[in-house]
Amino acid sequence: MNTRERLINVTSDLIRKKGYFGTGINEVLKQVGVPKGSLYHHFPKGKDELIREAVYWGGESQMQKYGNALKGKPAEEGLSDMIDVMVNELINSNFEDGCPIAAVAMASGTIDEEIREACAKVFVGWQNNLAGYLERRGIDNAQVKAEELYSMFEGAYVLSKAHRDVKYLLLQKKFIGTILNS
Amino acid sequence: MNTRERLINVTSDLIRKKGYFGTGINEVLKQVGVPKGSLYHHFPKGKDELIREAVYWGGESQMQKYGNALKGKPAEEGLSDMIDVMVNELINSNFEDGCPIAAVAMASGTIDEEIREACAKVFVGWQNNLAGYLERRGIDNAQVKAEELYSMFEGAYVLSKAHRDVKYLLLQKKFIGTILNS
Repeated sequence: MNTRERLINVTSDLIRKKGYFGTGINEVLKQVGVPKGSLYHHFPKGKDELIREAVYWGGESQMQKYGNALKGKPAEEGLSDMIDVMVNELINSNFEDGCPIAAVAMASGTIDEEIREACAKVFVGWQNNLAGYLERRGIDNAQVKAEELYSMFEGAYVLSKAHRDVKYLLLQKKFIGTILNS
Repeated sequence: MNTRERLINVTSDLIRKKGYFGTGINEVLKQVGVPKGSLYHHFPKGKDELIREAVYWGGESQMQKYGNALKGKPAEEGLSDMIDVMVNELINSNFEDGCPIAAVAMASGTIDEEIREACAKVFVGWQNNLAGYLERRGIDNAQVKAEELYSMFEGAYVLSKAHRDVKYLLLQKKFIGTILNS
């Protein structure tokens, strides 16, 4: 990775732990090992531009992980394995790594509107991917069901992180069939 | 309200907009109109103690609003009105006021463990209240269904805030019956 990519990568890791306000530029620069001028060289608009790029980066990385979990499987099995991606990320990070987008999206309304739009675009991308996946498996009302499954999983991700307990994510597996067959 | 309560009330309002890291003590003190010494007089442990109290305060206020929405109604109607509480708070705050707990809980793992525990206690209180409400209406597996409905609503709250669009919250109304009858 070049310097620009390393700045984005480190920021992407920090925002999923601490959100927009908790992510300090000095911490990013320190972790990457570059001086402050490097930030403005690569991101002329500063912190907000860097965070926006990190939202896209984190979103695309997460989409790849979900895609790998879903690939080639029947819907219920694929969705169950997608939940395990979130479960494993929480466990492996000692419950620090939640949804890479939600911690930033939480503060939308009080932060740069372009960052909020980036979060919304990532969420829509995930939902549309999931809707396509369900459609290809013959599920009716795939778009609505994809949006519903996303709400469920997103909420369970928040609750599991807050409780330091993956039971909320695992509970979703019981209701996948209920939603798909509704 | 006395000074202690005003400090908690203002902090409670700020954390739902900006989370733990986005809530600055100087902003709280300015809004309440008291000097810095006032913080340590009322909260000897400083910011973390104030935030913890604000989590409880916001949690209890929200529980009262949800309780009023549910009270005396059949389950589907009560839950639908509970969703409208969240919808109206987003609309009336120009999409700044999300879940009063989630924006703080998002950063758990990187913040004071007692604050995370406060968030978890509030969530459990809400879920248990809802489970009792469903039980009294003859719904079977009320505890599991209450936890599932909470995950759904929590996720939809996050997505609706991120999208500046209440459609994710309104979508939950379509699935209340599906969960209750599952």
